[in-house]
Amino acid sequence: MSGNRPATSMDVARAAGVSQATVSYVLNDRPGSRISEETRARVRDAAERLGYVPHAGARTLRTGSSGLVLVALPDVPQGSLATGLLEELDRKLGGRGYTMVQYGAREVKGVAAAKAWAELRPVAVLADLARLTGAGIEVLRAAGVKAIIGMGSEGIGGIPSVLADHEGVGALAVRHLMERGRTEIVAIVPREEGIRPMGLERLRGARSAGVPVRAVDLAFDEGEAAAFVAGLSGGEGVFAYNDDYAMLLLAALHDAGLAVPGDVAVVGCDDLPLARLTRPRLTTVRPDLSEAPASIATLIDRLVRGETCGDVGIWTLQLIGRDST
Amino acid sequence: MSGNRPATSMDVARAAGVSQATVSYVLNDRPGSRISEETRARVRDAAERLGYVPHAGARTLRTGSSGLVLVALPDVPQGSLATGLLEELDRKLGGRGYTMVQYGAREVKGVAAAKAWAELRPVAVLADLARLTGAGIEVLRAAGVKAIIGMGSEGIGGIPSVLADHEGVGALAVRHLMERGRTEIVAIVPREEGIRPMGLERLRGARSAGVPVRAVDLAFDEGEAAAFVAGLSGGEGVFAYNDDYAMLLLAALHDAGLAVPGDVAVVGCDDLPLARLTRPRLTTVRPDLSEAPASIATLIDRLVRGETCGDVGIWTLQLIGRDST
Repeated sequence: MSGNRPATSMDVARAAGVSQATVSYVLNDRPGSRISEETRARVRDAAERLGYVPHAGARTLRTGSSGLVLVALPDVPQGSLATGLLEELDRKLGGRGYTMVQYGAREVKGVAAAKAWAELRPVAVLADLARLTGAGIEVLRAAGVKAIIGMGSEGIGGIPSVLADHEGVGALAVRHLMERGRTEIVAIVPREEGIRPMGLERLRGARSAGVPVRAVDLAFDEGEAAAFVAGLSGGEGVFAYNDDYAMLLLAALHDAGLAVPGDVAVVGCDDLPLARLTRPRLTTVRPDLSEAPASIATLIDRLVRGETCGDVGIWTLQLIGRDST
Repeated sequence: MSGNRPATSMDVARAAGVSQATVSYVLNDRPGSRISEETRARVRDAAERLGYVPHAGARTLRTGSSGLVLVALPDVPQGSLATGLLEELDRKLGGRGYTMVQYGAREVKGVAAAKAWAELRPVAVLADLARLTGAGIEVLRAAGVKAIIGMGSEGIGGIPSVLADHEGVGALAVRHLMERGRTEIVAIVPREEGIRPMGLERLRGARSAGVPVRAVDLAFDEGEAAAFVAGLSGGEGVFAYNDDYAMLLLAALHDAGLAVPGDVAVVGCDDLPLARLTRPRLTTVRPDLSEAPASIATLIDRLVRGETCGDVGIWTLQLIGRDST
């Protein structure tokens, strides 16, 4: 290594008295080359001494069983469910010899995003469906990405996706409110840009349950919640989009002196640990993501091995009945 | 591109009828080379046609003003504050021409971690201090990483760090309880392995305020919280470690029929949006992280440019007095 310049494979080759190709063969453990143990040791020593680290890209040339899995998140604040899923996926992928990286630059999409991701030479890309385009997928394929997987609520042709059933959340919540005898159903649709599309899908599911559903746009704001609550006539069943909104409504109902569930029934979604602490305890739709890390890791592995795979669901849904309905 | 093999710079060189070095000069926009516009266009066309994407590593050879910032998180579940900070840091770095990636494999540390990170040829590494060792830092330096920054609560020599003042949280909370006339102070120390060290630092800060502080280990569990509350004699001021634990205690105090703050005063930390919805409204220590993304991005940029920098604080602390104290 000369000066502050990082060592290159050429430096290692010079120091070990071998060709650059030999350095590459030895350090990347490529099969099928006839290099003596003595030469291998000399190359490894030189690399160690010079502080040379091979490129990540070189690793994907090996067997395909090791490599980088690039996760490109949507440009939406990640909730604790998504964060926990990624942490567990990281562990599952590590157990199979992959390394996961979460790629930033969340506004970039299409071909520009695909080119940026491809620069890291990942063996797999797991990306928000809103960031993937047909041309982008072609760029990734041409760059040797073996597993290209979408994440979202509606799949696209040509690649398998990890899908979240948001309509199912709304349908399950409203069917539960109907079972508890509510006929006036209100569904909250969050006004925040990032999560609004999911709110509209949950509303569509709520409306599939067979009763009229009044949609109410709401920001996560105590003033707006108080105004909404002031307009209730009593007897309503409210599907609050998620546990955060349900907690917002419980506080507003408490302040207005309305009883839950006596006057108004409330159901959330997510089964957040904090939402279990409300009084009355919150009824919620629990998305069970416990199988997702393993099934996503398996999907990636199968695609890397050249198999053909279909979509997988990210969760199964369950109604957890507590005291707010 | 032949078959399914991704195109290499050699393929581009062949297709454009130039040397591999010329391809590298053109696609990486390196300064100081005399290559005609016509040749540059031919190389770019060939790269486009073959779907060739340069390695990320090559980009760091350019000017140093562009490149990959690798963030290596601690092996602890990330709360919403950390998640929000990283999302904003991502944007700030993007605005300066960097790309942030969050590296997985959270259990790996020391030299093994440094070698794995170096494979991506980052220009900067921002890593949990528990994962950095002196030897690991040397590996990163040798691999050409220009900015090496620690994250944690106590810095180490040789590199600048982004530091979180946990002792300050405990001190601020207890001084507030004293001001509200409480003399019997209890500090909750969470039992979870990942956050326990921070709990002990906050306890140390609590004990620096000048009154005796009783430490109570607690898991995030309603049964344990109920047992703790049953043992209170009334009049205590409780520093609950964070807002999650404060909400756990508020629920347990409510169930036990104890008045807040009449019988027991409670102060949290984090100023979570959900914790603002408690009744009574929660008093909390607010860590203001709004300056952190910009100051971390500036720190990275200055180190990449070869400047010498000191530690930076990740937050400023403020007591938000509400109705629970």
